[in-house]
Amino acid sequence: MTALKRPWTKYPYFEEDTSAEVVLARMGAATDPRLAEVMTSAIKHLHAFVKEVRPTHEEWLTAIKFLTETGHMCSDWRQEYILLSDTLGVTMLVDAINHSHGDGATENTILGPFYVENPPHRENGANICLDGKGEPLTVQGRVVDTAGNPIAGATVDAWQTNDDGFYDVQQKGVQPDMNLRGIFTTDAKGRFSFRSVKPRYYPIPFDGPVGKLLGAMQRGPNRAAHIHFIVKAQGFETVITHVFPPDCPYLELDAVFGVKETLIGDFRQTGTPSAPEWQLDWDFTLAPSR
Amino acid sequence: MTALKRPWTKYPYFEEDTSAEVVLARMGAATDPRLAEVMTSAIKHLHAFVKEVRPTHEEWLTAIKFLTETGHMCSDWRQEYILLSDTLGVTMLVDAINHSHGDGATENTILGPFYVENPPHRENGANICLDGKGEPLTVQGRVVDTAGNPIAGATVDAWQTNDDGFYDVQQKGVQPDMNLRGIFTTDAKGRFSFRSVKPRYYPIPFDGPVGKLLGAMQRGPNRAAHIHFIVKAQGFETVITHVFPPDCPYLELDAVFGVKETLIGDFRQTGTPSAPEWQLDWDFTLAPSR
Repeated sequence: MTALKRPWTKYPYFEEDTSAEVVLARMGAATDPRLAEVMTSAIKHLHAFVKEVRPTHEEWLTAIKFLTETGHMCSDWRQEYILLSDTLGVTMLVDAINHSHGDGATENTILGPFYVENPPHRENGANICLDGKGEPLTVQGRVVDTAGNPIAGATVDAWQTNDDGFYDVQQKGVQPDMNLRGIFTTDAKGRFSFRSVKPRYYPIPFDGPVGKLLGAMQRGPNRAAHIHFIVKAQGFETVITHVFPPDCPYLELDAVFGVKETLIGDFRQTGTPSAPEWQLDWDFTLAPSR
Repeated sequence: MTALKRPWTKYPYFEEDTSAEVVLARMGAATDPRLAEVMTSAIKHLHAFVKEVRPTHEEWLTAIKFLTETGHMCSDWRQEYILLSDTLGVTMLVDAINHSHGDGATENTILGPFYVENPPHRENGANICLDGKGEPLTVQGRVVDTAGNPIAGATVDAWQTNDDGFYDVQQKGVQPDMNLRGIFTTDAKGRFSFRSVKPRYYPIPFDGPVGKLLGAMQRGPNRAAHIHFIVKAQGFETVITHVFPPDCPYLELDAVFGVKETLIGDFRQTGTPSAPEWQLDWDFTLAPSR
């Protein structure tokens, strides 16, 4: 009438106290070492989390449902899990882990989902704003090495939203193709320049489960206004970064934590109150290839 | 030419060292306290995990892709995230957290995805095997309280796979409806009994991302053979549990960690080598309602 109580010999049965160890004991000895390392850490933290919050069955099902809906929201046009990673600060953390700091080079920040391959090459001084909206902005500066020497032939790949807060790829047929995108090449003195419009803040897509979670945590969806850049030169580390105008109200509340103090530019007013214009002098500093 | 270095005032900018704290500082003061508690723990563990394993961008994208595919695999008929929770031992952990231990009551284990609402009520002694396959098994026992007193009018709800390793709901049109399911009610002496077939092990669905992950960790998909039970009686805690035959080769390797030492039953041979039959004497002990 009672249990046979057949004890385990090699793989322990489940126990609450040692739950993570019970699971990890099953990992095969020939598992890829990196996968084993990652899954060991993941399983330990997952079990520690569950023991810390002690979810009810209903709460755990809520978590399962959230993860499921986040997956269902993903399509060829929308990556809700990247949005989750972004809004929980993990994308910035992975970025930080993979880039050196304190070498004097321009700091990295996230690439974001709106980069387009093969943007047009343009002459220095060209205007990348093709829809005529917004307050004109001139961006000029140099690409230099960490000793301050100019780097000739470096490429400065810039992209940003239009004055309505949308990238061209979000408004196909509304905005001109390749609006507010262009690659510039530095001259013999390392100089580049282009004309554009002052960037403005915009919301990340918040109509999905991640937006709901943000709302429940009383967080807003807005990204601080910024211009994206990828700066490349032979013999140097590529930098993927933004420049932020200092008057954006979302600098400290950027939904994806992309703002760094060193990436806030001095956007200077050069126009009049009735016809505002802006100028940004901005240098990029590249570290030698590792 | 240099950054404006506008320092933060209320919400800190991203820093690698304090990344989790930067994210948590954004949580609104009026966030639901339980959500705040859960997300605080989740964000801390997530950042600690990423700092521990230091993923490359490519590795992090692999994780994003895995989570996305796991979501895409979920449908009305398949819950791949529950499968992930099951195979990482988290479902058993949540179950353990929500049930008392050491009170002498029959231990809980997971419900699983194949329970069907409103199974047929049957007379004690009835045969729930409607497809005639497998080695006959008689199950008999009592439902008692923790002092050993019989509980009359308790319900014993049983379900299991057929001899091919499938539940009826997995083979609609192949197996008779409600094959190997039934609710029995204990008599004045707390007794119940039914006839069935010896359960056999079977694989969890392993054609999705979770199956691939299990394979990569050199783990198999098989659940140890078992009969499911939900035992209920007025004034007592309901128990959701299994009974496992002791000769199953997957007792220590149950893919979802459902086996507990106290749930292994003494399935006794009562037939002949050419016509095997089995008997299981099994009591359920219920704790008083909390």
